[in-house]
Amino acid sequence: MEEKASTAIAGISHDRDSIINLDHGDPTMFEPFWKEIGDSATVVIPGWQKMSYFSDPRNLCWFLEPEFANEARRLHRIVGNAVTDDRHIIVGVGSTQLIHAALFALASTEARQPVDVISAAPYYSMYSGIADFMKSGMFHWAGDAATFNGDDNFIELVCSPNNPDGEIRHAVRGNEAGKRVHDMAYYWPQYTPMRHPADHDIMLFTVSKATGHAGTRIGWALVKDAEVARKMAKFIEMNTIGVSKDSQVRAAKILKVIADGYELPDLEAGSKFFHFGRCLLANRWQRLRQAIKVSGRFSLPQFPSEFCMFFKEQAETYPGTCDKLILIYVFACKFAQKYFFFSLFFSNDKGFAWLRSEDQTIEDLEVFFKTLNILTRNGRQFGVGPEYVRVSMLDRDANFDVFIKRISSLE
Amino acid sequence: MEEKASTAIAGISHDRDSIINLDHGDPTMFEPFWKEIGDSATVVIPGWQKMSYFSDPRNLCWFLEPEFANEARRLHRIVGNAVTDDRHIIVGVGSTQLIHAALFALASTEARQPVDVISAAPYYSMYSGIADFMKSGMFHWAGDAATFNGDDNFIELVCSPNNPDGEIRHAVRGNEAGKRVHDMAYYWPQYTPMRHPADHDIMLFTVSKATGHAGTRIGWALVKDAEVARKMAKFIEMNTIGVSKDSQVRAAKILKVIADGYELPDLEAGSKFFHFGRCLLANRWQRLRQAIKVSGRFSLPQFPSEFCMFFKEQAETYPGTCDKLILIYVFACKFAQKYFFFSLFFSNDKGFAWLRSEDQTIEDLEVFFKTLNILTRNGRQFGVGPEYVRVSMLDRDANFDVFIKRISSLE
Repeated sequence: MEEKASTAIAGISHDRDSIINLDHGDPTMFEPFWKEIGDSATVVIPGWQKMSYFSDPRNLCWFLEPEFANEARRLHRIVGNAVTDDRHIIVGVGSTQLIHAALFALASTEARQPVDVISAAPYYSMYSGIADFMKSGMFHWAGDAATFNGDDNFIELVCSPNNPDGEIRHAVRGNEAGKRVHDMAYYWPQYTPMRHPADHDIMLFTVSKATGHAGTRIGWALVKDAEVARKMAKFIEMNTIGVSKDSQVRAAKILKVIADGYELPDLEAGSKFFHFGRCLLANRWQRLRQAIKVSGRFSLPQFPSEFCMFFKEQAETYPGTCDKLILIYVFACKFAQKYFFFSLFFSNDKGFAWLRSEDQTIEDLEVFFKTLNILTRNGRQFGVGPEYVRVSMLDRDANFDVFIKRISSLE
Repeated sequence: MEEKASTAIAGISHDRDSIINLDHGDPTMFEPFWKEIGDSATVVIPGWQKMSYFSDPRNLCWFLEPEFANEARRLHRIVGNAVTDDRHIIVGVGSTQLIHAALFALASTEARQPVDVISAAPYYSMYSGIADFMKSGMFHWAGDAATFNGDDNFIELVCSPNNPDGEIRHAVRGNEAGKRVHDMAYYWPQYTPMRHPADHDIMLFTVSKATGHAGTRIGWALVKDAEVARKMAKFIEMNTIGVSKDSQVRAAKILKVIADGYELPDLEAGSKFFHFGRCLLANRWQRLRQAIKVSGRFSLPQFPSEFCMFFKEQAETYPGTCDKLILIYVFACKFAQKYFFFSLFFSNDKGFAWLRSEDQTIEDLEVFFKTLNILTRNGRQFGVGPEYVRVSMLDRDANFDVFIKRISSLE
């Protein structure tokens, strides 16, 4: 990660030779919203507060700040993306730590053989490494869920919307006795239409993708079973003795600002975070599709358009919701009507572009983009071929602009 | 942890039946200092800052905030407890994550057999769990370093001053080819005399014990070898994709306030953190020794008194350094002269009391203390017998007072 990252800063100069790093999904595109919001999202922590290891000794997740848990539940209720009633919340150092914790909790410490960990290809590039890097005797990576032919002793990681390709996923091995972890990092209205509140045994979310605050390293799991939740908390105790209180307090504030933006209608118009994210991504996707169409060398996955329950409800509750910020973006992209339409009814304006080469002279798309000084992530890392790459759509405007410029100028 | 913790809150009422939890080393005794310090230790983070995964893409530890690294180096230089020149700093989620990272970095991913992890008993109660809980094929717990009879393929964890007993430790297997990790969480002037800057290959520190901010979950490693440092950073990337930026920013501020307290002599007298900690612990130890002497049932380890290079230098630089805060504590404990003396020349006023039963009717000291509604940690967890317990000396005044009251009232 660091090798590629080390070149990222060079990208800011935007000269012809600058390297643009779209390999990782650093969600810096949300910075302008938080600048616009101003002081209400600022966190202030006096030196003597939050010193103890303990947040709530009565909770099985004793390191969970109650205010963070409350705001997470509140935002899920507003957005309608997950059932939180009768769920335990386990906070983690990003959803990455929670994937480890879930594997630990679902695997048996008594088993003689490690349990198989699977996910349908293309799968998130870190899953295999997370399962294998400690050479644990409790679990190990067993590859693509679609071709898995082991017994019922498995854990399926179900990423929905899927990273890298944005597909809405269901467990491939849904009717069997194996266990499942639903990684729902991207199930938010800026990335995908909200269908209904998800209701799985273990659901993982992260502030990184929900609000753009990757640096806080705060994720959370909604867990049905108390014993599984207890084991996940035990993992985090043994791994890091809890999770930063400061970042939990900050994340609580950030989630609160987003929730207030929808629940307090007298706030300024520019306070609707998901509208901001939706419009900015819609703008970027329109430009990307146009550039790809002109080049004729690549293709993108196609998804049927769908109604978004969240934006529909918002439009019905506040019909004049096309606020200043949205208008700025809508007019900026010159496709105002299309975007108004999309804001209720949209398809695949995801956090990543999953590009496939349609040019027979390009075998390895990552290598091809490297010749344009654009860093992407190779399809091989997601369990498929090098004709695919994943490109982050979440970087700062300036970097995204250079990316579009370079692919638009392909002969 | 959570079960015992769940009773901690009850301790605040301090009635006769209240349960006092001195099992864990929650460093809340430092809260009054930070309340006194006031706004200069307050951290403020606007909503749009520190959103990226990356802190410094040019550093092999790309998630390390430069301001935190700078303040850590500065404080080590002032205190004189560790060499930082030509060292890589790796930040972790507490020193716990860094122990995992160090074991990962020192073990070979290619080895057929897991490397033995050892530490001299009594050893920190989490070491065995950290080594074993993931059932890693890379390393496993092999027990007491003093009785270890394996080959040179080992990693020795050297805790100095040692948790639980406060002893200054050197590697037991010092002349052999094995690898070592020095856990120096308590090598700060409030706990032990500063002898000289420690100079080992891997040294671990944590804000929890240095400043009392356990809730930040920030630790750091000083690492000589670049390849080891790179592997430790890789572990943290795979485990949690970095470390909370917010807590790093806060920790930088906290370390800066302590350093300023010693480097800016025109600050208010009450700004000398190590003097505060030293005096408060000296007061507590005096009371504990007195209570133990009266009861005649327990003993404590004895250490020779030693000159503290840090307090000596402070006394020479600022001869009038007995500031308001120190005076309050010194007079409060009514042994003023002794404490003035101790502040340059002291022995074992550590973060934990390592009590041994000297009463043949008490076989299990943890069980005995439970009858007094005082929770302690059993010697067995540290690799020795149940005639020992570890008692935290770092809790809030009110809880410590109840502890002293209860052992003083033993018949």
